[in-house]
Amino acid sequence: MSEINSIYAHLLSPSYKQEISNWLKEDVPSFDYGGFVVGEAQEVAILYGKSAGVVAGIPFFEEVFNQLECRVEWNLKEGEEFEPIKEVARVYGRACNILLGERTALNILARCSGIATRSKKCIKLKEKCDFRGVIAGTRKTTPGFRIVEKYGMLVGGADTHRMDLSSMIMLKDNHIWSQGSIKKAIGRARKIGGFSLKIEVECLSEQEADEAIEAGADIIMLDNMKGDMLKQTAKTLKQRWAGKRAFLIESSGGISEENIVEYFSPDIDILSMGSLSQGVPHVDFSLKIKK
Amino acid sequence: MSEINSIYAHLLSPSYKQEISNWLKEDVPSFDYGGFVVGEAQEVAILYGKSAGVVAGIPFFEEVFNQLECRVEWNLKEGEEFEPIKEVARVYGRACNILLGERTALNILARCSGIATRSKKCIKLKEKCDFRGVIAGTRKTTPGFRIVEKYGMLVGGADTHRMDLSSMIMLKDNHIWSQGSIKKAIGRARKIGGFSLKIEVECLSEQEADEAIEAGADIIMLDNMKGDMLKQTAKTLKQRWAGKRAFLIESSGGISEENIVEYFSPDIDILSMGSLSQGVPHVDFSLKIKK
Amino acid sequence: MSEINSIYAHLLSPSYKQEISNWLKEDVPSFDYGGFVVGEAQEVAILYGKSAGVVAGIPFFEEVFNQLECRVEWNLKEGEEFEPIKEVARVYGRACNILLGERTALNILARCSGIATRSKKCIKLKEKCDFRGVIAGTRKTTPGFRIVEKYGMLVGGADTHRMDLSSMIMLKDNHIWSQGSIKKAIGRARKIGGFSLKIEVECLSEQEADEAIEAGADIIMLDNMKGDMLKQTAKTLKQRWAGKRAFLIESSGGISEENIVEYFSPDIDILSMGSLSQGVPHVDFSLKIKK
Amino acid sequence: MSEINSIYAHLLSPSYKQEISNWLKEDVPSFDYGGFVVGEAQEVAILYGKSAGVVAGIPFFEEVFNQLECRVEWNLKEGEEFEPIKEVARVYGRACNILLGERTALNILARCSGIATRSKKCIKLKEKCDFRGVIAGTRKTTPGFRIVEKYGMLVGGADTHRMDLSSMIMLKDNHIWSQGSIKKAIGRARKIGGFSLKIEVECLSEQEADEAIEAGADIIMLDNMKGDMLKQTAKTLKQRWAGKRAFLIESSGGISEENIVEYFSPDIDILSMGSLSQGVPHVDFSLKIKK
Amino acid sequence: MSEINSIYAHLLSPSYKQEISNWLKEDVPSFDYGGFVVGEAQEVAILYGKSAGVVAGIPFFEEVFNQLECRVEWNLKEGEEFEPIKEVARVYGRACNILLGERTALNILARCSGIATRSKKCIKLKEKCDFRGVIAGTRKTTPGFRIVEKYGMLVGGADTHRMDLSSMIMLKDNHIWSQGSIKKAIGRARKIGGFSLKIEVECLSEQEADEAIEAGADIIMLDNMKGDMLKQTAKTLKQRWAGKRAFLIESSGGISEENIVEYFSPDIDILSMGSLSQGVPHVDFSLKIKK
Amino acid sequence: MSEINSIYAHLLSPSYKQEISNWLKEDVPSFDYGGFVVGEAQEVAILYGKSAGVVAGIPFFEEVFNQLECRVEWNLKEGEEFEPIKEVARVYGRACNILLGERTALNILARCSGIATRSKKCIKLKEKCDFRGVIAGTRKTTPGFRIVEKYGMLVGGADTHRMDLSSMIMLKDNHIWSQGSIKKAIGRARKIGGFSLKIEVECLSEQEADEAIEAGADIIMLDNMKGDMLKQTAKTLKQRWAGKRAFLIESSGGISEENIVEYFSPDIDILSMGSLSQGVPHVDFSLKIKK
Repeated sequence: MSEINSIYAHLLSPSYKQEISNWLKEDVPSFDYGGFVVGEAQEVAILYGKSAGVVAGIPFFEEVFNQLECRVEWNLKEGEEFEPIKEVARVYGRACNILLGERTALNILARCSGIATRSKKCIKLKEKCDFRGVIAGTRKTTPGFRIVEKYGMLVGGADTHRMDLSSMIMLKDNHIWSQGSIKKAIGRARKIGGFSLKIEVECLSEQEADEAIEAGADIIMLDNMKGDMLKQTAKTLKQRWAGKRAFLIESSGGISEENIVEYFSPDIDILSMGSLSQGVPHVDFSLKIKK
Repeated sequence: MSEINSIYAHLLSPSYKQEISNWLKEDVPSFDYGGFVVGEAQEVAILYGKSAGVVAGIPFFEEVFNQLECRVEWNLKEGEEFEPIKEVARVYGRACNILLGERTALNILARCSGIATRSKKCIKLKEKCDFRGVIAGTRKTTPGFRIVEKYGMLVGGADTHRMDLSSMIMLKDNHIWSQGSIKKAIGRARKIGGFSLKIEVECLSEQEADEAIEAGADIIMLDNMKGDMLKQTAKTLKQRWAGKRAFLIESSGGISEENIVEYFSPDIDILSMGSLSQGVPHVDFSLKIKK
Repeated sequence: MSEINSIYAHLLSPSYKQEISNWLKEDVPSFDYGGFVVGEAQEVAILYGKSAGVVAGIPFFEEVFNQLECRVEWNLKEGEEFEPIKEVARVYGRACNILLGERTALNILARCSGIATRSKKCIKLKEKCDFRGVIAGTRKTTPGFRIVEKYGMLVGGADTHRMDLSSMIMLKDNHIWSQGSIKKAIGRARKIGGFSLKIEVECLSEQEADEAIEAGADIIMLDNMKGDMLKQTAKTLKQRWAGKRAFLIESSGGISEENIVEYFSPDIDILSMGSLSQGVPHVDFSLKIKK
Repeated sequence: MSEINSIYAHLLSPSYKQEISNWLKEDVPSFDYGGFVVGEAQEVAILYGKSAGVVAGIPFFEEVFNQLECRVEWNLKEGEEFEPIKEVARVYGRACNILLGERTALNILARCSGIATRSKKCIKLKEKCDFRGVIAGTRKTTPGFRIVEKYGMLVGGADTHRMDLSSMIMLKDNHIWSQGSIKKAIGRARKIGGFSLKIEVECLSEQEADEAIEAGADIIMLDNMKGDMLKQTAKTLKQRWAGKRAFLIESSGGISEENIVEYFSPDIDILSMGSLSQGVPHVDFSLKIKK
Repeated sequence: MSEINSIYAHLLSPSYKQEISNWLKEDVPSFDYGGFVVGEAQEVAILYGKSAGVVAGIPFFEEVFNQLECRVEWNLKEGEEFEPIKEVARVYGRACNILLGERTALNILARCSGIATRSKKCIKLKEKCDFRGVIAGTRKTTPGFRIVEKYGMLVGGADTHRMDLSSMIMLKDNHIWSQGSIKKAIGRARKIGGFSLKIEVECLSEQEADEAIEAGADIIMLDNMKGDMLKQTAKTLKQRWAGKRAFLIESSGGISEENIVEYFSPDIDILSMGSLSQGVPHVDFSLKIKK
Repeated sequence: MSEINSIYAHLLSPSYKQEISNWLKEDVPSFDYGGFVVGEAQEVAILYGKSAGVVAGIPFFEEVFNQLECRVEWNLKEGEEFEPIKEVARVYGRACNILLGERTALNILARCSGIATRSKKCIKLKEKCDFRGVIAGTRKTTPGFRIVEKYGMLVGGADTHRMDLSSMIMLKDNHIWSQGSIKKAIGRARKIGGFSLKIEVECLSEQEADEAIEAGADIIMLDNMKGDMLKQTAKTLKQRWAGKRAFLIESSGGISEENIVEYFSPDIDILSMGSLSQGVPHVDFSLKIKK
């Protein structure tokens, strides 16, 4: 890993390298005929950023080429913004290897950077409006590719929200019905999840939220609540429990880059958005061998 | 597999089931605490289509739940269009299992259907304008998830284009430089790829196209050529070689749902679009356990 | 899964089944010669509990035999205590299959039950002494086998503590040095871990603990502190921050079944013990085909 | 990879390395006792070619030893013919590592070279008789080992034919019956396979072949047709469709090194032979540590 | 598994099923276009034996079709000989699934039966000549496919010889040099391999054999020794050590179906033949859907 | 691998490295947040031995850190005994990488060394009492971790006993019943296991042992026999068959570090102990980054 890009890479354990090997295999199930044609001349390829964005996914991109015995030099750091046409990096290696890795590496970078770019836009809105809460993603990611997508959120400044079903307990209506009450559901969750996991409860009303807070919920999710109703509920809850219980309030459901400003409120701690990873425009990169 | 949806499922070998197992593991690396809370009551969950679209990805969705000992009944066939709010299917099984599979299954369906929906829109434009060529995807897919995304293209009526580097030979400028001429590059590709693979050549000019056609290229890709220039080049090539060589002409580069109509031409056989799989809006589904 | 044992099994996603397949392969890398000798007569094998303990690991044991087309009937529920000699379960299937799975299944059950048994002993001491904190394990588990060992802790009534490096952030001296202060380390952890993960800080003194609490630590670990020093520190911290900050106090280091009583204190919330999974006596089971 | 042997190696993506790791594991499921006995003295082992043949499989052989930290130096290039006793290569490394890899590496080389040798013999007959068609293999390969076997065909000068069910569509009688006619079957294949895959149709008569050609088949397979009947049918078809349709004619079924000459005809484009990979004599190699 | 064929199948642990899944994936890396064309009509396919041989590999063949939801009924038992044209089995299932599994299943059966057939021929010669030793294979098998090939040897009546480097210790000249003497090498092997593994020593002379026997070798391999020299050495050794040491004598190197009779001797216990798995003619099977 | 520790490491094929990669993944299913906090400063960590023991597992420990680009220097050789507090090794690398590998590496070393330590204690008792038989382990190991545990036995001086069901045939009462007699069971085992595998028979009486010896058993297991009964039976068997048959006698069942001395007898060749791998105290190590 080149030093300049190392910070977010410290989040990664070496096991992601096996995934990248699998992704290369997906693109070459048997032979790479083009590689045979192009041969092994040493070449330099330039990675161009062709649409504006935040570059994200450097360690994944690099590992594709490491497995192909190529070397990458970067002009940008993970998370930097750029305007097109920008020379983002250079890849050095054999022609056959550069072309073999090209599509896989670009597919990773384009999507990871796309997510970072959208995340960054939301973060900028937040900063502009002086919203103090966090902007978070969801588990609405591409199966098998979550680590790259959540990584993109982090690079863009967003919060990953829980990574998976094992890393925070979220209680929804089904969990509550099955136990008979919010209190019982939280009790059962605490019993099994233990002290190390937070518990979040999806509440449909202020009353439910009160019950959840009393029972020790760490986070209250006000799902699909909007506008004044949302802000007022959050405010009331925060005031009522001030000095008695510590909890966070999350708002979720239908929040987008376009409407996020409407959700900013001093009483809301978390805004979670499926749109950080769904329907996200990619950042357009291309890799051209230098003539 | 329920009979009603079986047609596209015939494309799949059982090996995709292993992938689905991996995707479930991604969402539950250790324990599913929520599953413990909700327990094993037999429930019915309704899959709602909440935004308009084409449903696609049924065998993948079903397999998620098969691995969790749940059963799915469908109201729509693979590829059918629907308007929200539509009850698309029902899932029968234990509460803990339905919730465990929910997110993975929805993530698959939302993206696969999104791709099918965009594909279908382009196909409708093609039909409306009486364009006789094919609309094709590219290899710009999510690493590890290509089979689902290419499947979505097929369900939407688009052509997958080549699946990977092993299934058609595409010669670009690098391949040609390395061999010294288009003719030599095609010769070398034919030598290694044999009779069973088609060869496509990316050409920057009519002259290059002529050379490629003469040398036996199966498909001529006119990359990043647009407007009258594109249409005229295609027309000239088709006329010049009529009765002498059989070849197809592909146009690629920057084609989108918005501008595709400008590319329709009687002399173009293939329009390939990265935008069939990049930056595609998802179709919004939710899975609600019936009270 | 037989109904009687289903509760803890709800924690498991189907991906553990692949592990069990790997474990069977470990014990039969090529051929099972004994299976050939013994043949396929339908037999019943009795699982005897030969030393006192808590039975734990039922879903794993069952899955071994499911993969071998055998069926298991249980006389005990997950977590029940028994005295030897106890008939714990019966396995029905072909002789060759029962013998093939025997050792793998027993190895799982003996270790998982051993951990549950030790956990249960500690829980009983806790209850007897009316200690209100939790008894928790650690990450000192056998590589590749953690899910079974943590499961055993849960069945025995203990808390798993964090499952892995991804599910709670623990800051130790190295993390703190690298950032220059506890406050900065917590800030950096919160930035990357987000709202959904708890942060625990290992503190060597009351002063460090104060700094960590002020900076928002969720849990204070007083590592290798003992006796009155430990209890007094915990008490002081709880009193000082009452009504100001919510936090938990964990004590760790050298706690065993023998000395745990000395650590019970109303101001300590968590006692974590490597000895829940290290050096644990197995519970002795045997599987005998009925003559 | 040493430069001298690199050409065919360009066909390979790094994913084959994982397979080689699996093959080494097959030969050492637990411990390598012999390795312990022989120890780690640095040695040189000579690879002798003991029967005449074409050497093939160099990258696979090298990777076995790369994984064992040994180095290989070659006296022959991929595809060169040799007469016994020939010193083909030298392996440098620790005694224990050379012996660990020996059998796996030789098994690969012996079979891959055997296939290349038989392929080369057929190619020489083709050249001697001035046959202009291609000699191709089939999918009759060893499960899990196809990439090595198809690679051997390429090194020997043969065509791999389609690699798998995903890389060319072959329609046989069952496909045709199910659709009611050759035309319908081809239409359906084209619809799903798209423009990038070729379509081959197995025909039992000239009439069927005409129907297939008319419907756009790329290749006509005259299965199990022989002698004059075969040659006459091929001739007639080529004459009838000259200037109207471009298609290839393949002959298959029972062709062997012994009888291949009887199939040479100016109207036949492809001779495919299961015997390129079935019942092939191995090339005999041995690896001897130099005293 | 159908009862009639079950005996050798008892040797197999379920882990071979994963391999078969990988083999199916090798033949369908992405889509099975032919499966889409042929559809899901229920069909019966007949497995014909088209060349004389011993059928072997039934559990592997069956598992291919089990994974495809097809059912197999057999007319022959594992290990039975047949003359062509013989209806060996019937496969029941959907047309698309039968065709998907066809090639993989046939490739397994053709090779496994080929090995069993050659093994059986050698066993018949042995019985005819009243040779009391065993005919054994070697580790000269196809990487990744050893279990099927060794299984074929067993079905044909041959001995598998050691399965891998972990299941018997074979000391060759390198091992001996490294330790300075046969005695020291055996001592070191016994120290590490323990009591449960046999030790075989490759000896180039009677003198070496004496040293090995004295040092406790279980098997003496007289490599590349032939004719009277071989028989006389074996006889002398057996006589000299009668009543003093128990050991077996193995002859290896260049033994084939053609010359094996020359190796039969009352003093030789084992004849091991690379030719049981190298250069073996396949048994020709075909699978035809019944019209 | 550092030279000083290389001897036992020669037993290992590179495939164990994949397991270590899986174990690292178990501890970091998604992100390593702590690694992000601590950063990439180059550090030196000291491995302290905190309880007395035999160090074992060096190649596994090293490979954990190799995968993390760290380097290890050892002060002790594999198998050396040490007293606390001992500086056993130093790990050099980035802070984030040292901490990422710490727990996995220590878990391996603590357990492997624990097994070696217990084995060594038994070996010392054996040597002290001049017992000439071997002390052996069993298959009572942790699923998925057997190679490390058996390796620990070897390092401690014990015999691994059979590694798995494929590497020696053990006939127990079920095998014998199914065949009707010990003789028939041994015959059947020899038929399938061939000459290369040893056969052990579990006998409940002297009479059974006689039958087994006569039928050619290599090892007689006197299961759960104790005290004079055991010693007398062993003596009688050895005397009766002296000069007629070569066989070993194994005693098993309830042997522990505490009572092993009672089992020492000149007529017993093997004492096998589940307690070499079950309920074994770990050796306590810690890894501290040097300030």
